[in-house]
Amino acid sequence: MRQSKKPRVIIVGAGFSGIFAARELAGGPCDVLIIDRNNAHTFLPLLYQVATAAVESEHIAAPVRGVIRAMGRKAANLDFLMAEVRSVDFAQRELLAEGQDGEELRLPYDYLLLAPGSVTNTFGVPGADEHAFSLKNLEEAVRLRNHILRSFEAAAWTADADARLNRLCFVVVGGGPTGVELAGAMAELMTGALKRDFPRLGLNRPCVSLLEAGDGLLPGFPQNLRDYARTKLTAMGVDVRLGAQVSRVGAQGAELKDGGVIHAATVVWTAGVKGEPLAVRLGLPQAPNGQLLARPTLQSLEHEAVFLAGDICRAEHEGRPLPMFAPPAIQEGRHAAQNILRLLRGEQPRPFKYFDKGMMATIGKRAAVARMGGLTLKGLPAWLLWLAVHLAYLIGFRNRLFVLANWAVDYFLSERVVRLISRRNPLE
Amino acid sequence: MRQSKKPRVIIVGAGFSGIFAARELAGGPCDVLIIDRNNAHTFLPLLYQVATAAVESEHIAAPVRGVIRAMGRKAANLDFLMAEVRSVDFAQRELLAEGQDGEELRLPYDYLLLAPGSVTNTFGVPGADEHAFSLKNLEEAVRLRNHILRSFEAAAWTADADARLNRLCFVVVGGGPTGVELAGAMAELMTGALKRDFPRLGLNRPCVSLLEAGDGLLPGFPQNLRDYARTKLTAMGVDVRLGAQVSRVGAQGAELKDGGVIHAATVVWTAGVKGEPLAVRLGLPQAPNGQLLARPTLQSLEHEAVFLAGDICRAEHEGRPLPMFAPPAIQEGRHAAQNILRLLRGEQPRPFKYFDKGMMATIGKRAAVARMGGLTLKGLPAWLLWLAVHLAYLIGFRNRLFVLANWAVDYFLSERVVRLISRRNPLE
Repeated sequence: MRQSKKPRVIIVGAGFSGIFAARELAGGPCDVLIIDRNNAHTFLPLLYQVATAAVESEHIAAPVRGVIRAMGRKAANLDFLMAEVRSVDFAQRELLAEGQDGEELRLPYDYLLLAPGSVTNTFGVPGADEHAFSLKNLEEAVRLRNHILRSFEAAAWTADADARLNRLCFVVVGGGPTGVELAGAMAELMTGALKRDFPRLGLNRPCVSLLEAGDGLLPGFPQNLRDYARTKLTAMGVDVRLGAQVSRVGAQGAELKDGGVIHAATVVWTAGVKGEPLAVRLGLPQAPNGQLLARPTLQSLEHEAVFLAGDICRAEHEGRPLPMFAPPAIQEGRHAAQNILRLLRGEQPRPFKYFDKGMMATIGKRAAVARMGGLTLKGLPAWLLWLAVHLAYLIGFRNRLFVLANWAVDYFLSERVVRLISRRNPLE
Repeated sequence: MRQSKKPRVIIVGAGFSGIFAARELAGGPCDVLIIDRNNAHTFLPLLYQVATAAVESEHIAAPVRGVIRAMGRKAANLDFLMAEVRSVDFAQRELLAEGQDGEELRLPYDYLLLAPGSVTNTFGVPGADEHAFSLKNLEEAVRLRNHILRSFEAAAWTADADARLNRLCFVVVGGGPTGVELAGAMAELMTGALKRDFPRLGLNRPCVSLLEAGDGLLPGFPQNLRDYARTKLTAMGVDVRLGAQVSRVGAQGAELKDGGVIHAATVVWTAGVKGEPLAVRLGLPQAPNGQLLARPTLQSLEHEAVFLAGDICRAEHEGRPLPMFAPPAIQEGRHAAQNILRLLRGEQPRPFKYFDKGMMATIGKRAAVARMGGLTLKGLPAWLLWLAVHLAYLIGFRNRLFVLANWAVDYFLSERVVRLISRRNPLE
């Protein structure tokens, strides 16, 4: 299938790192193969909006082949393979993947960029894996959306008051950006669209608890923004609990280390991430959280033909490991690609330097927090900035348009447009 | 949960019949309960577009509670239950449903409108149930879309020429409107968006076979339109076979009664429908195709408190049974509701008269066929009429807007926007 004799670069993962690396390599003196188990790039920062029925799942997913086409003619050296990566023979520089029908695909490479991302880490808390929902990919987001909406449909016909309340209550574990954004969006969903959908339930205040084990929300954000997030969420009716460590998760709620119990039919775990198991299986030197250790050049410690980027890559900034956010992933993907191009030109790879543009998280309508360099914003300005940045990075012109339309509906009508409970739809 | 002492009307099924019946009953002297296993009304006429990646699944689904809200304040007597109907005690006038968690719900009614719709009928053709895809609900449409896109992703990496071609070929069984529309849309998908997505596959002509057992496509349409549909599809590269009876369906294609074999990884069965099994289980007098026999007033033969509408209802027009299309379903739903209102007022129910507005089917870009009363249209005029009618009946202002936007993209760029392969997303 492959005639070209150009050196081949294989990119594992079509996330932010993989896509931005591919853009760097488009038109370069190499063939580039992007491999992902999904056929689409997913815009993870908006997963919580899919979960809260604010945007369609299809609108935050951009088919990789479409993304490649959008790069224009210079992307003729890019190709895509939808497959599950099984293993890598680093000595032979060969990647082993499993095709759609389980057939084995042996793919030789000259350079390999590993950017498979991360998965939820429940730290072995009993019941968390079985009962807690997580929010790391599109399917988990749709699954959570279905569960939330089904809980309300069920509650509407539950005679017993306690059982009914239980179905209307939600626990979000983890006070990082995902937890804060999800808790805020769920509170607005309950007192907005769902309140109108279920007039007989008389939903006047949301029943959403946000549990953070640490002493404040949004660790890593400036203190004034952390305080604002807490105050704002509390004002929105979210029960924010700091120093709340979950000891067990069950089908009917969560138990805390201090003995407290929170009754809720829905528990969402956003309290931790770890390296994607695939990368862990490869047997490369790794950090305790499953991230793979990288040289300053983003090459793997052991194999200089192997580069790392995104959540899987343990890169440091000012002596501290970079958070598993989109900006580092994008910059690492670009830098790794540039280093591959340098090596192809016979030059030396350069060390990665993270340019800290800042960080942001949205809380609710007209309410977000953002740090740009030293400057901190909160409330409406931060929210507008958040909208602009997320629309700008959302891949696909059409997707931007549709997401913007949904946001407008949500903003002006407090309407959540995607209140569809999808049934089982197997891949096969 | 129910205080009101008004008579209660239960509507089973939130399809065209159920929704239009509910609209008639909104503000009436009764409580109305709509029951459906899904929380959304699905616009079935566009399922083939979901299957061919032209529109998002969410865009042809309108959550029932949203539809009720859109009816305004007068709809305060309407309520919704998402549940599986198990059985009906006609003597006690009580309906038995199963809630989200399997709990039993006993729902007394004064009048019952059965409009559960229909399912695919494979007439016992060996292998059809296991291997053929069908297109009767949203999940089946998404499942087919996933399969089509996955087949192309797999073909792109299939070295063996025969196996590759097999994955790129499609068989549509049944030359009715659904089959014609699906075959045309698949042909345009292959030579449009997918041809550009997979440049290395060199897709210059579609590999789509449309099999019709009868002597022509679109039975029931005027002859000149049937001929046009055949000519047009053939010109689009569809292999139209008349008098082609399928004797067996396998994972790799279909076998014909005349001994012929068509190799294709995808076989879609649109060749028959039968009454929804639920209705069949109720033990009411029925026709061989599982439709329930109705009095001219659309009441069930045995129980005058029970009305029938939509695909499940065997109603006749000019001595022939009405086709299982949307227009009869809408008119029957309205009429049944009006008769219920008459009975509530102590008046006599009136016999149903079908007003034949005509029928239409789209074939491809700027190509459709339509009959309005005696007038027949084909080509562009019919296609524009088709667009207008389908947008007009598509429920939900936002859905109309988004579907129109997708159609515009498709029309001007021959682009199919929803090329996302969704993975398993279980209900639970």
